[in-house]
Amino acid sequence: MSGGAAAWRTIHSGCCHSGWDRSLAPVIHVAPGETIELCCRDAADGHYTQASTAADIARMDLARVNLVTGPVFVDGAEPGDTLKVTIGEFSPSGFGWSAIIPGFGLLADQFTAPRLHLWTYDRTARTPAVFSDIARVPLKPFAGTIGVAPVEPGRHDILPPYSTGGNMDIRDLAAGTELYLPVKVRGALFSVGDTHAAQGDGEVCGTAIESAMDIVVTLDLIKGGAPPFPRFSTPGPVTRHLDAAGYEVTTGIGPDLMRAARDAVSGMIDHLGSWRGIAPEDAYMLCSVCGDLRISEVVDAPHWVVSFYFPRIVFA
Amino acid sequence: MSGGAAAWRTIHSGCCHSGWDRSLAPVIHVAPGETIELCCRDAADGHYTQASTAADIARMDLARVNLVTGPVFVDGAEPGDTLKVTIGEFSPSGFGWSAIIPGFGLLADQFTAPRLHLWTYDRTARTPAVFSDIARVPLKPFAGTIGVAPVEPGRHDILPPYSTGGNMDIRDLAAGTELYLPVKVRGALFSVGDTHAAQGDGEVCGTAIESAMDIVVTLDLIKGGAPPFPRFSTPGPVTRHLDAAGYEVTTGIGPDLMRAARDAVSGMIDHLGSWRGIAPEDAYMLCSVCGDLRISEVVDAPHWVVSFYFPRIVFA
Repeated sequence: MSGGAAAWRTIHSGCCHSGWDRSLAPVIHVAPGETIELCCRDAADGHYTQASTAADIARMDLARVNLVTGPVFVDGAEPGDTLKVTIGEFSPSGFGWSAIIPGFGLLADQFTAPRLHLWTYDRTARTPAVFSDIARVPLKPFAGTIGVAPVEPGRHDILPPYSTGGNMDIRDLAAGTELYLPVKVRGALFSVGDTHAAQGDGEVCGTAIESAMDIVVTLDLIKGGAPPFPRFSTPGPVTRHLDAAGYEVTTGIGPDLMRAARDAVSGMIDHLGSWRGIAPEDAYMLCSVCGDLRISEVVDAPHWVVSFYFPRIVFA
Repeated sequence: MSGGAAAWRTIHSGCCHSGWDRSLAPVIHVAPGETIELCCRDAADGHYTQASTAADIARMDLARVNLVTGPVFVDGAEPGDTLKVTIGEFSPSGFGWSAIIPGFGLLADQFTAPRLHLWTYDRTARTPAVFSDIARVPLKPFAGTIGVAPVEPGRHDILPPYSTGGNMDIRDLAAGTELYLPVKVRGALFSVGDTHAAQGDGEVCGTAIESAMDIVVTLDLIKGGAPPFPRFSTPGPVTRHLDAAGYEVTTGIGPDLMRAARDAVSGMIDHLGSWRGIAPEDAYMLCSVCGDLRISEVVDAPHWVVSFYFPRIVFA
């Protein structure tokens, strides 16, 4: 809830950038401990509307993908410090999209045709989002892309995540979570965007419930102690919105974790088809917004087990 | 609870074998739908006792590692069928061990010295197991190794899992779970062993709380429909014994899932050291028995995110 009476400063979604770059001019300076609100565009910069179809996927402007709001200069932040980001409330737009984008996603070789699903959901995120007559997906808004500027000069593509964070797509970077990021440049240069109303671990089709949102964060500075990669603490359980009815689980087993992940997800798409009559394209998108990829064992050489957990609650 | 008054037949732990082999003589024939009890040795075949020390690790008999109880011939099972295993109650011994075994485990290059931890725990598994004065680990007994014979002739090493199951070390193959295995040979030739009192997703140090147990299973036959890899359904939530106090989470980010998994676990060992003063060897074993490896995203090419979730409840 961003709340009209809030005491914090707001950064509007026009204050955004594409890519990470230490030379970008900050849009705001904050003192450590300050709480601010950042308005975030969706990952396609408003390209999709209620009237959109799969044909619009090819017309996405790749230069406007995953724009992030910022950068925020944190006073006193120096390389080697730790930026503590306390993630506050989300104010989602209530409209979102998921897509199969040709060439993108874990099973891009199997799913070559574009597919678009539009969502209209409860802006309080308290009730599940309806996926046609197929399923009801519990919501948990979070920031897909959140990070600070890398030390290396020049523009760094926004799509991959880095040791400084960025497009990590970690489902649990949600309200109440404390995220610790390694500061690499003076002022940290914090940005956030690519907000999601729901996503499973893996984001297997490449998209979540992509949706514009406003986010409140508190930025604190810890001198020194920069972690090698982002670290976070969740305020409590992370899957209770999904787990009550148990899980259907498929596995992939073999010497390569990526191949095992692909086999596990392919197995679930087949299983949802034979069990529930769900079309493969719908199953793939549904897996992406609510199913979880886990590494069950990574020590019984030379074969590892990756499991894909699909929550039955979406069919309840 | 195996219960003295049980109506089912029991297979004693002497009826065991090392490795998978379709030519092994069955120890019992069962009709589809029959419930049986299987007594399972621990993964070191009773090598460790309350008097054991790390020096005993080098004296493990590798020919006696991961012995499984069976094989069970299921009447009518033919290649292409599906064996449905309904996992019933576990009767754990109350004694267990965890170890760092040189050359084994996700961080074998960092942890080269042997280390042994012995556990005495509640045989009802209702109260957590005490790890020195460091932590209290919630228990959830399950079968680390459970599967059927491969179609290829000859003896297949028991350590790696296969598409027919085996040493999958999936933490949720616990009481109430229904497991579906692809039958490859006549009679299926089902075996089970390597029972664990607790383990996290990944089993990162290579061992869980290794412990002898008796297991009750019901074996049903579904004609046809063999899945490409094992699939299962959990009866309900899978992490509620761990999640109530939230999680500390470290990440690994980069182009290789295995490297990312290693970075995430290394980061947690460092974090448990700086946060709780836990020695690296203890932290590594603790991560293995209660922490979870998850794939947060596997689509933002060319960098993936693997996260390691450590439950704070063990310090409550």
